[in-house]
Amino acid sequence: MDNKLVRNAAGRLVPEVFNGQTAIPYMGVGKFKPNGTKHAPPISSCADYPANGDKRCQTLRDALIKSGLCDGMTISTHHHLRDGDYIANTVFDIAHELGIKGLRWFPSASFPCNAHLIPYLEDGTIDWIEGSMNGPLGEFTSRGRMKGTAVLRSHGGRVQAIQDGEVKIDIAVMATPSCDMFGNANGLGGPSATGVLGYAEMDVQYADKVIMVTDNLVPFPCLPMQIVGNFVDFVVVTDKLGEAERIISGTTQITRSPDRLIIAELTARFCEAAGIIYDGCVVQAGAGGISLAIAEYIKAILQKNHWRIRVGFGGSTQYMTQMLESGLMEYILDGQVFDTEAIRSLNENRNHHSFSVFNAYNYHSKGNFTSMIDVVTLGATEIDVNFNGNVVTHSDGILLHGIGGWQNCLFAKNTIVALPLFRNRIPVIVDEVTTLCGPGDLIDVVVTERGIAINPLRTDLIEKTKDSGLPIKTIQELKEEAETICGKPDKPKFADKIVAIVKWVDGTVIDVIRQIAD
Amino acid sequence: MDNKLVRNAAGRLVPEVFNGQTAIPYMGVGKFKPNGTKHAPPISSCADYPANGDKRCQTLRDALIKSGLCDGMTISTHHHLRDGDYIANTVFDIAHELGIKGLRWFPSASFPCNAHLIPYLEDGTIDWIEGSMNGPLGEFTSRGRMKGTAVLRSHGGRVQAIQDGEVKIDIAVMATPSCDMFGNANGLGGPSATGVLGYAEMDVQYADKVIMVTDNLVPFPCLPMQIVGNFVDFVVVTDKLGEAERIISGTTQITRSPDRLIIAELTARFCEAAGIIYDGCVVQAGAGGISLAIAEYIKAILQKNHWRIRVGFGGSTQYMTQMLESGLMEYILDGQVFDTEAIRSLNENRNHHSFSVFNAYNYHSKGNFTSMIDVVTLGATEIDVNFNGNVVTHSDGILLHGIGGWQNCLFAKNTIVALPLFRNRIPVIVDEVTTLCGPGDLIDVVVTERGIAINPLRTDLIEKTKDSGLPIKTIQELKEEAETICGKPDKPKFADKIVAIVKWVDGTVIDVIRQIAD
Repeated sequence: MDNKLVRNAAGRLVPEVFNGQTAIPYMGVGKFKPNGTKHAPPISSCADYPANGDKRCQTLRDALIKSGLCDGMTISTHHHLRDGDYIANTVFDIAHELGIKGLRWFPSASFPCNAHLIPYLEDGTIDWIEGSMNGPLGEFTSRGRMKGTAVLRSHGGRVQAIQDGEVKIDIAVMATPSCDMFGNANGLGGPSATGVLGYAEMDVQYADKVIMVTDNLVPFPCLPMQIVGNFVDFVVVTDKLGEAERIISGTTQITRSPDRLIIAELTARFCEAAGIIYDGCVVQAGAGGISLAIAEYIKAILQKNHWRIRVGFGGSTQYMTQMLESGLMEYILDGQVFDTEAIRSLNENRNHHSFSVFNAYNYHSKGNFTSMIDVVTLGATEIDVNFNGNVVTHSDGILLHGIGGWQNCLFAKNTIVALPLFRNRIPVIVDEVTTLCGPGDLIDVVVTERGIAINPLRTDLIEKTKDSGLPIKTIQELKEEAETICGKPDKPKFADKIVAIVKWVDGTVIDVIRQIAD
Repeated sequence: MDNKLVRNAAGRLVPEVFNGQTAIPYMGVGKFKPNGTKHAPPISSCADYPANGDKRCQTLRDALIKSGLCDGMTISTHHHLRDGDYIANTVFDIAHELGIKGLRWFPSASFPCNAHLIPYLEDGTIDWIEGSMNGPLGEFTSRGRMKGTAVLRSHGGRVQAIQDGEVKIDIAVMATPSCDMFGNANGLGGPSATGVLGYAEMDVQYADKVIMVTDNLVPFPCLPMQIVGNFVDFVVVTDKLGEAERIISGTTQITRSPDRLIIAELTARFCEAAGIIYDGCVVQAGAGGISLAIAEYIKAILQKNHWRIRVGFGGSTQYMTQMLESGLMEYILDGQVFDTEAIRSLNENRNHHSFSVFNAYNYHSKGNFTSMIDVVTLGATEIDVNFNGNVVTHSDGILLHGIGGWQNCLFAKNTIVALPLFRNRIPVIVDEVTTLCGPGDLIDVVVTERGIAINPLRTDLIEKTKDSGLPIKTIQELKEEAETICGKPDKPKFADKIVAIVKWVDGTVIDVIRQIAD
């Protein structure tokens, strides 16, 4: 760890070198202009692949060996199997058995099931993780126990890092619910269906070697080809990709918390009052309890006005598919599926399309879809009085969440952070966020059960809602209200060691996370 | 033109340098192993594109200027508009008006309508063409009138050249039948519908600048996204992309020539006798009169045996869609559409899928689909006694055709060249092909109206059909039969000047075409 720190444009002290790589400090939204070229993977030849298209390999172990697995490599996996995933863990079981050391794990997200990897982080099989560190892995990181420095990226930032060659993937191991012998694949069928594979596309295109693992080998051609086999080296058929019930929910559920229902209702009413919801609008829904409740309130607004949503961006749920099928939403564009109803819809509805996180979120492309979204509602662990947001650490300073698509969604035309004013009697509105994940200039509105704060930059929204009867307050007022009830929270105490880097959507370093003090 | 020539593995004298670029002489099928990396286009940033997704530009002229059009650039276009195309011609009208010189035109194919460009080849607006030179452009080239050396590639070879950085596209101008303001596009709708856009995908992904031109702007999002707008710089809305009736046939027609019907029937009977057609086979159909007739005969074989084709690879026609809809074919994979019925089918049938020439034909990928095809039937201008094939020049030595997918299809498990034994009293079976486009080891069977010749390498096919009652002959016998009827044809006379290079699927130089002697 090189400890030379510089102050970035957000005022945070960040290193220019970590894990032996250099990085650029955050320069502000849209300020860093890349001037290089995209990553260029090796050229392959059909002469080196079986003419009959059969790329099957007996075991994942064989496929990893044939892919040249060796010390220091970067292994990528995706998170479509969520907390039911067997595959990422198995890859490192094999690496451990083979005595491989110093790997970098590059998942699109991690889940509590991946706590299985902690022994490998301890014994040197894995040096560090670049990806989300949720739950146990986050705490492990915060305690300073990871050998290298963890790197946190948004979903779009991960795509940017692959495309730009910031992270060169040696071997991508892609769990695929349906796959043919050639490697064409989708998430639509089989015992481990995930619906879509929007997080796997970039890995497949840019990795040196690509291994598809499936528990549902289908005859050629696997259609639709969410992944095309022309990028695939090996296909491994296994008994089970994961625990189906932890991959996809049977049903997603709306929050029943009275406070959270108030937040959802206020959010929807705000959207209507501000004219953010209108006939033909584009929205991004989430699968959290509050988001689902917001969607239900918005549905009522649409019905009342005889409006419909032009496009709903998934992660999709039964609530979205109901809107699609009842004509309240024209299209769903889907990078991730949350429940079985959404998989059914993908299979049945021609207006429910799979797409890649590349299309939605990559900041280093010729535009992306996020900035065309009229309104997105997000959560956060903390928001500060300058509207800066934190989504990775809690107020106790411990890393517990990944960034997901959160940073990317901030580019929507109207970004609303909807969250309870306090959690376990700890206020969420603070003087300064513990970890800066998103700059305040991109967060437009904060909705709590005790009032709504509009970013002073959004004079248009302030003007439009001034006579709405909604409980509009300043962010300071909300903060003081929380502190009146809960008291002012203690600041977390950190040691010096930087345990994780937080990247902005353009690959620059927006903040660091330090080891928690004992 | 550097005239240092070397003899390649096929015995043809080819230059190692042309148009100032070096190239590798053909080394044999599967012998050349690439060791470089793919082309790496510049990294873009969303900060440089409109946040509202609206990339519209008033005129194609404006878009070309904003794309930095200047002397010596490479401009790519696709050929989905076929002989009805206005756009490729308009690009060079504009370049000419702007006084731009020394351009390289890189189309996926050219058509007679592109004879419009001959004045620009004469006045230095365009230096040379890399792509097919059909009809008038072929003759122009053969007369030695092109400034640079033309380069002929197969459809797959074009994709390989883009991917490998052999041809760097400065500006791709893509005519798109349906397109939204962001550049998402497909070929399915509008007055100039082409069905699919399988030849445009690579240009869009690898070009520095991408301009979409459409006569059918649709609201965001244009679905399905055959092209994703994240690669697009500008969208230009124009009155008309081309002459609809010359883009797509109203209906494709089976040959009525008695000789050609005999060829088709013999081909189908051969396939049945050799066991090449079976329940679950994969076939590639064409849109030529003989190919369509073969498809009809094969249909009868399927019906008789209660078999069905697993996958039919398009170019698709009404004959394929009838097979799909009557249950004789499970899936159509389609890179190109030939008639309006096929467009209807693409819109209606979930088992009719669009795909890219990248998936089908790129030899520099991790396998492609062609080698999984059980049987493909192709035409040729000449076949020689060693089963080598020519598809670009006629026996008079004049360049008149592009390669299309012909070279790529040779990799099918069984490649049948079906053609009349003579045309205009000129035999098509010769001692040595005028131009070598495909090596004899990949051509398995030659079917003519007067007999069938099986490549001696295919002892399996010889064995399987020996008692079939089919008129199996040697290729020499067929040649002699033709010469008995027509006489031995004169060899064409060439000048020294090399006017065109013929590339093999791996980017090596398999042959050259010389200027025709006056």
